[in-house]
Amino acid sequence: MVSKAVAKYVQQLHQKKYRQRLGTFLVEGAKSLRELLSSELQPERLLLTAEFAADPGLRLPPGVPVDVVSAEELTRLGTLQTNDAGLAVVRTPAELPLRPQPGQLLLALDQVRDPGNVGTLIRLADWYGLQGVVLSDTCADAWNPKTVSATMGSFTRVPVWQRDLPAWLQELPQELPVYGADLHGDNVHRLQLRPSGVLVMGSESHGLTPPVEACLTQRLHIPGRGQAESLNVAISAAILLDNFFRNG
Amino acid sequence: MVSKAVAKYVQQLHQKKYRQRLGTFLVEGAKSLRELLSSELQPERLLLTAEFAADPGLRLPPGVPVDVVSAEELTRLGTLQTNDAGLAVVRTPAELPLRPQPGQLLLALDQVRDPGNVGTLIRLADWYGLQGVVLSDTCADAWNPKTVSATMGSFTRVPVWQRDLPAWLQELPQELPVYGADLHGDNVHRLQLRPSGVLVMGSESHGLTPPVEACLTQRLHIPGRGQAESLNVAISAAILLDNFFRNG
Repeated sequence: MVSKAVAKYVQQLHQKKYRQRLGTFLVEGAKSLRELLSSELQPERLLLTAEFAADPGLRLPPGVPVDVVSAEELTRLGTLQTNDAGLAVVRTPAELPLRPQPGQLLLALDQVRDPGNVGTLIRLADWYGLQGVVLSDTCADAWNPKTVSATMGSFTRVPVWQRDLPAWLQELPQELPVYGADLHGDNVHRLQLRPSGVLVMGSESHGLTPPVEACLTQRLHIPGRGQAESLNVAISAAILLDNFFRNG
Repeated sequence: MVSKAVAKYVQQLHQKKYRQRLGTFLVEGAKSLRELLSSELQPERLLLTAEFAADPGLRLPPGVPVDVVSAEELTRLGTLQTNDAGLAVVRTPAELPLRPQPGQLLLALDQVRDPGNVGTLIRLADWYGLQGVVLSDTCADAWNPKTVSATMGSFTRVPVWQRDLPAWLQELPQELPVYGADLHGDNVHRLQLRPSGVLVMGSESHGLTPPVEACLTQRLHIPGRGQAESLNVAISAAILLDNFFRNG
């Protein structure tokens, strides 16, 4: 059992306004906790089941308070439907300087509101070793528990930034390529793309917002043969990224 | 308002055993309903809000009973969190003969239990114009409302079959290629793949089951540069399929 104060604190972190005010976020479930405990991120408090805490492979950081809790308590306090491992309250990492590096690709997300999609895209950025992910102010929060969970541990490795996306894109050096997906764009199978610059992905239902679209230097199209009208944003990003990294 | 009998019938279709017994499934929400009503599939009954039914672009099939319902009633009867359009009870289409065609690719799913993933994979099969999708007995049901919803309308176009997957693979002609994803497989960026044969995708957490893996003729690997351990099954399938269709 945890104290009422701890329970209240954990439950507040379901909401963005408290995450921002308190500067912490939640990490839940076995996979995410293992990744957390092998990373540089700093947990402030751990709530673990006795079974999970007893795992000899687990490296518990010194000086961090650990509460032993039941799976029922975890389910009540956290956001997962079931959780028999634990949860952590973690200090939100400080933002790194955001400077596009030559020969590196940044992924930028324009109004991707679904935290599951944002998390999957952060995981994908990790797979391809991107410089990081820039989120528009209108995207789902990178530290939403559903986002964190969908990254499958990549939240420990991928730098993220939140920006006024059109303003940020307008200030980029003229020579930096800015790519975006577009049904009338160039067929990616006929291009020799190099991973340098920014790839912007929009929301599935609305595409890129006009001020962001105005900043593109090249439009990319994924050719299909069937009748589906579109692809999910994470699926499209995966295919485009694979096309950037196949010529290396 | 619908009668108690209709309400009960609709709610039974949330469960696989009733879908199988009754030979019908549910289609919910505006996008799926529009695709349904432009397809060959046969609705048995429509429950529509007055607003959605009044859309002059909607082609209501003659002879099909329509109940006018409120959004609240739809939310209570259906599976979506919100639905201000309607739902349909639809006859499950008869299975087509399952014969791999030369020069066509079939997608096979081995124990993909999440209906959202199965639906996304059916949508992807539609995008690339695949011959269809073969589901192992242990996959999520193709007619689960969450699967149908995740196909974003592709359920109206993509043939699906449910099979004992290892038994089916073992009976395929020897010369038919059977591809599968494997971390130690051949780098897809170095291959000239042609869309013919079967591509088998396993569950994210467990990979391919051993009897299915034993049937592969070629193992494929998607090279990454970062530190993520794996990719989501639909993301991996998307990247592989794009590699099959880029040489056409």
